Amino acid sequence: MVKVGGGDDLDVAAICDDVARQVAAGLRLVLVHGGNRELSRVSTALGRPPRFVTSVSGIESRLTDDDTMNDFTMVYAGRVNKTIVAALQARRVNAIGLCGADGGLLRGPEKGALRVRELDGRERVIRGDRSGRVESVNRDLLMLLLESGYTPVISPPALSHQGRLMNVDGDRAAASVALALGADQLIILTDRPGLLRDPSDEDSLVRSLGVDELDRAMELAQGRMRIKVLAAREALAGGVKKVCIGDGRAGAPVAAILAGAGTVIH
Amino acid sequence: MVKVGGGDDLDVAAICDDVARQVAAGLRLVLVHGGNRELSRVSTALGRPPRFVTSVSGIESRLTDDDTMNDFTMVYAGRVNKTIVAALQARRVNAIGLCGADGGLLRGPEKGALRVRELDGRERVIRGDRSGRVESVNRDLLMLLLESGYTPVISPPALSHQGRLMNVDGDRAAASVALALGADQLIILTDRPGLLRDPSDEDSLVRSLGVDELDRAMELAQGRMRIKVLAAREALAGGVKKVCIGDGRAGAPVAAILAGAGTVIH
Repeated sequence: MVKVGGGDDLDVAAICDDVARQVAAGLRLVLVHGGNRELSRVSTALGRPPRFVTSVSGIESRLTDDDTMNDFTMVYAGRVNKTIVAALQARRVNAIGLCGADGGLLRGPEKGALRVRELDGRERVIRGDRSGRVESVNRDLLMLLLESGYTPVISPPALSHQGRLMNVDGDRAAASVALALGADQLIILTDRPGLLRDPSDEDSLVRSLGVDELDRAMELAQGRMRIKVLAAREALAGGVKKVCIGDGRAGAPVAAILAGAGTVIH
Repeated sequence: MVKVGGGDDLDVAAICDDVARQVAAGLRLVLVHGGNRELSRVSTALGRPPRFVTSVSGIESRLTDDDTMNDFTMVYAGRVNKTIVAALQARRVNAIGLCGADGGLLRGPEKGALRVRELDGRERVIRGDRSGRVESVNRDLLMLLLESGYTPVISPPALSHQGRLMNVDGDRAAASVALALGADQLIILTDRPGLLRDPSDEDSLVRSLGVDELDRAMELAQGRMRIKVLAAREALAGGVKKVCIGDGRAGAPVAAILAGAGTVIH
């Protein structure tokens, strides 16, 4: 299970080269990807600059009104998903792109209301947000495709219990898919070497972490890295043996992580 | 095989209601959809108003440079496709959205150069256009999904032999899919009652046409209707027994056409 982040610096061509080599060598891979930066770019060009909020539990997320949900779907399930699928097809990987609505792949409840913390520390409730969380995964669909030789490339949005498209976090969606498939390993590619002791120093990589050290890791992690640690915790708690957070910016990122690079959480 | 046009006036909720009833009654449906008007809206909002050209054979099509190809993929494979999938899922149809790149569903050659006729009648060659035509359909993938109870919802773009996303016409793609599946019938929903003797008079519907009358029909047809007649010809020539072009704007369009509404070509 490989999660490809939505950061600008990720080298999608290098990742696809590497994925093609791994698949050719017999590894069964499922990809989940993000599209955060591209969405911010497109929504800004459409006159809707992104707005982020921080939940009372300290997790940053994008405010998703109806227009943003439309832009989100265009960018994640359209542009980013199909660009990766075509890049893999060009490398002879029989990739198939799915968002969470397809075949009811990723379903769950909408949050309804967000409890956020303002910059001045006060709590506020925001209604009408189109985000939620993944509660169930259509494992049968993924197995049907994997057993027929396809490589699934999965993207948010998910499908809410009300039958609406819903913004879900890609890292946590990847953890849900890894759990549903009983994956051996969840690899989270990001634009850092892994979890850093000092976010401004790329040499301060945390090489290895036990699941009992994750509370401490949540304190170290900043911004989007917090969600990756949260996703790692959810995957490990559900039975995935190993989660690796590593560098997706160049080289052969999947091979490097399989060889021990990045932060290993077990 | 039902083709849902990309015109504004189509009532997608009514079509999804109708499709849900047909699927519940045991009909096996495959949908192909367009997204023409929505694409023009989004690309205009992004500062790239659409440019259309007319080929030397008299078919109008969208000029598709690299930026337009990106917008095309966002709108068709993202927004429109997933909106229809979610609407069907909300009606208990296990829809799964695929573009032509997914699983190599729709493949073919890029045109490379377009020979167009200018308004003054002169011919000109345009290079760098990202359009092409469907040459092969991954029938196995569609059968795998249909036999597992999924309803495929298919969208351009297709995948070129160079492994790039490629603009293909939705009506002709629908004809290719109908042929590959050996569909009994190809239904093309549009924002007209069908083929009209006089395009400005909705009461001038042509009720029935033989395949030998299609040359005459190509003369009657204007604008986008010409491609629908061309798609009908391709489907009938390949063995589909019946093509119906009918009204997708309201009511129960699929049921109406199954009951004889629209233009029947056989």
